[in-house]
Amino acid sequence: MTMDLTFLGTGSAYPSPGRGASALVLRTEGECWLFDCGEGTQTQIMKSQLRASEYRSWGPAVPVGPHDITVNRVLVPPGRITKVFISHLHGDHLFGLPGLLCTVSLQTSPGPPPGPGPPPGPGPPHLPRLDIYGPPGLRKYLRVSLVHELETLPDQSPPEGQLSCEVTAACGPLHPQEQQGRSVPLDVSSDCYLLFEDKRFVVKAFRLFHRIPSFGFCVQEQDRPGRLNTELLKKLGLHPGPLYGRLKAGEAVTLEDGRVLLSSDAMEKPVPGRKICIFGDCSSVVGEGPLKVCQGADILVHEATLADEQQEKAVDHGHSTPRMAAAVARACGARRLVLYHFSQRYKPSALQRDGDDDDVLTLRRQAEDALQGSAVDVTLAEDFLTLEIPLKR
Amino acid sequence: MTMDLTFLGTGSAYPSPGRGASALVLRTEGECWLFDCGEGTQTQIMKSQLRASEYRSWGPAVPVGPHDITVNRVLVPPGRITKVFISHLHGDHLFGLPGLLCTVSLQTSPGPPPGPGPPPGPGPPHLPRLDIYGPPGLRKYLRVSLVHELETLPDQSPPEGQLSCEVTAACGPLHPQEQQGRSVPLDVSSDCYLLFEDKRFVVKAFRLFHRIPSFGFCVQEQDRPGRLNTELLKKLGLHPGPLYGRLKAGEAVTLEDGRVLLSSDAMEKPVPGRKICIFGDCSSVVGEGPLKVCQGADILVHEATLADEQQEKAVDHGHSTPRMAAAVARACGARRLVLYHFSQRYKPSALQRDGDDDDVLTLRRQAEDALQGSAVDVTLAEDFLTLEIPLKR
Ligand SMILES: [Zn+2]
Ligand SMILES: [Zn+2]
Ligand SMILES: [Zn+2]
Ligand SMILES: [Zn+2]
Repeated sequence: MTMDLTFLGTGSAYPSPGRGASALVLRTEGECWLFDCGEGTQTQIMKSQLRASEYRSWGPAVPVGPHDITVNRVLVPPGRITKVFISHLHGDHLFGLPGLLCTVSLQTSPGPPPGPGPPPGPGPPHLPRLDIYGPPGLRKYLRVSLVHELETLPDQSPPEGQLSCEVTAACGPLHPQEQQGRSVPLDVSSDCYLLFEDKRFVVKAFRLFHRIPSFGFCVQEQDRPGRLNTELLKKLGLHPGPLYGRLKAGEAVTLEDGRVLLSSDAMEKPVPGRKICIFGDCSSVVGEGPLKVCQGADILVHEATLADEQQEKAVDHGHSTPRMAAAVARACGARRLVLYHFSQRYKPSALQRDGDDDDVLTLRRQAEDALQGSAVDVTLAEDFLTLEIPLKR
Repeated sequence: MTMDLTFLGTGSAYPSPGRGASALVLRTEGECWLFDCGEGTQTQIMKSQLRASEYRSWGPAVPVGPHDITVNRVLVPPGRITKVFISHLHGDHLFGLPGLLCTVSLQTSPGPPPGPGPPPGPGPPHLPRLDIYGPPGLRKYLRVSLVHELETLPDQSPPEGQLSCEVTAACGPLHPQEQQGRSVPLDVSSDCYLLFEDKRFVVKAFRLFHRIPSFGFCVQEQDRPGRLNTELLKKLGLHPGPLYGRLKAGEAVTLEDGRVLLSSDAMEKPVPGRKICIFGDCSSVVGEGPLKVCQGADILVHEATLADEQQEKAVDHGHSTPRMAAAVARACGARRLVLYHFSQRYKPSALQRDGDDDDVLTLRRQAEDALQGSAVDVTLAEDFLTLEIPLKR
């Protein structure tokens, strides 16, 4: 199964024409999961869909590291987004979500073709579900932001002719398109939050230290059992049928010549699942959960807002430098460290000019220096960079 | 005094790479006033500041009408925005405001140079004031959106280790950077809201019919009394001094030869103020206020979301067509009608391709057809179009 990671925004603090605000998409067959959704994310998604000839993209021109696998442009249809994970409630990770939800709703509605406004009529039963995971406060933020979206007020005149002042109701009750959510408690033994688990993935969240509560996410693909080695079975004279099922179920089978074939001998090796860890803004981790759950990450995405020389300032603001990110990657034994969430002073390489003081390549070098002697590769994320996540070596 | 109007976004429903969501800037000497603030407005502002060589702009390539005055690119420093007017609480007019306020705060803060995060420390006393006018609900929306901005939580761990569910407090109390606001009652006799008045301007709001309460704004420049005709005075032998002051104050003055000079003869003609009217989303006006207050508008900015053929659908969604907009402009005796808020199906002329069904120039033609026999000029707005507002003829 192919998996890839696309960066839609790699800037900190605010979106700029050179770097969007934080957002990245993990794409697996048939589904897109969005991690953070800064202002302008839906526009970045649209840009990623335009043909290169129509849109002059800034990146990726230089940024990939020596061992990068693939860089290309993927299609992320907003209607394909099935899960959204919000690391924390700072605007540069959040302010694009209400607009994205409106657009997803327009695109997935079974009603009239997308027009200028949201379609009338009932929503929830017809719409595909989109799960949103995030910190306390996110639900209220969305309800208040969307209070006037997707519904029509019968009364066109505000109460008592007031132009300002009163607050709109609707904070407690469900939004018309909202289903009942749930709280996820911290699992004390693992120091993590189990967000969900299905046949393909386990997704956990862990705590980070920032200015406000911040989280990281670990997406662990489930190991897949090896397939039946049908070539071997045919050589042994076994043909598809109930015996195959017993071998798959782990039973041993007696062949016609009396030999016993163990299930483990009839199966190819299991395929170990991949692990992708995405850190929200942080100057350090909280507790033991983060490093434990991220052990052996195939890709560890970590912020590097400022250069090592500005570590004190970075930490004051709850942020990290390349050296700090590298230390986390090393402690986790990650295969690849991807840096993102750069201060807007670090222009994308394609926009870099002679005489610019700050060079984003410095950030990569600092991480690489800190990782000397380790097996961790370093990649600089750029807007619209896509990284394929290969199967385990 | 020069005045101009710059469109930062001219699309409806959502921002796209071709058309930003609604936002326009009225610029007078020293101040910028923002009307609506869809998602991505701050990025549009930044794009408007980039040199043309650095940013490939889509527009304005074709859109201007036969009598347009000036098209150019203006600088809109976010820190210069002193007033924001929000027509209604749909996301395509609103979702860019929290992010813009964060950026304005970063740029105007007297603290450390703009870094990756908001500066710590107290804000209000040092910051220039920015007034925000809008419908009920706007204040709550901003408080909830900005609850985590511009302040640091001492407690990094959410209550009881919950990752989701609880709502954040802070809805009633003032935001740390907020000053007490006020309500503006409808003035029943004029059927308008007087938002403010100073020596230079009177700004009023009026009611529109949309799916939710929506407003339009009328910016009326104050008439300026004519200056003293100093040339004439010198000819008459009068030199600068107390007599000048008396003439300015409206008094008559007796000359040495006994003749009486009236104040009105000593003054040049008064300069009539310009009037700019900006309509929010609407399918019609509410009450008599709108047409009364907009009489004689120099520029009337009106939405035209869909073409005349789709009037029924437009009205169903609370929107207008070119013909409907033209009828308003004609009823107001406006000098110039500027159309905007186009369905995203109407690509900017520069992005139009052979075979595209929908051509934005159709919208202009429909308005022009409806205005035949009138003196109203028609302009199609495009992102980054700037219109100079000339002094009254
Ligand atoms: Zn951030
Ligand atoms: Zn943050
Ligand atoms: Zn609109
Ligand atoms: Zn609207």
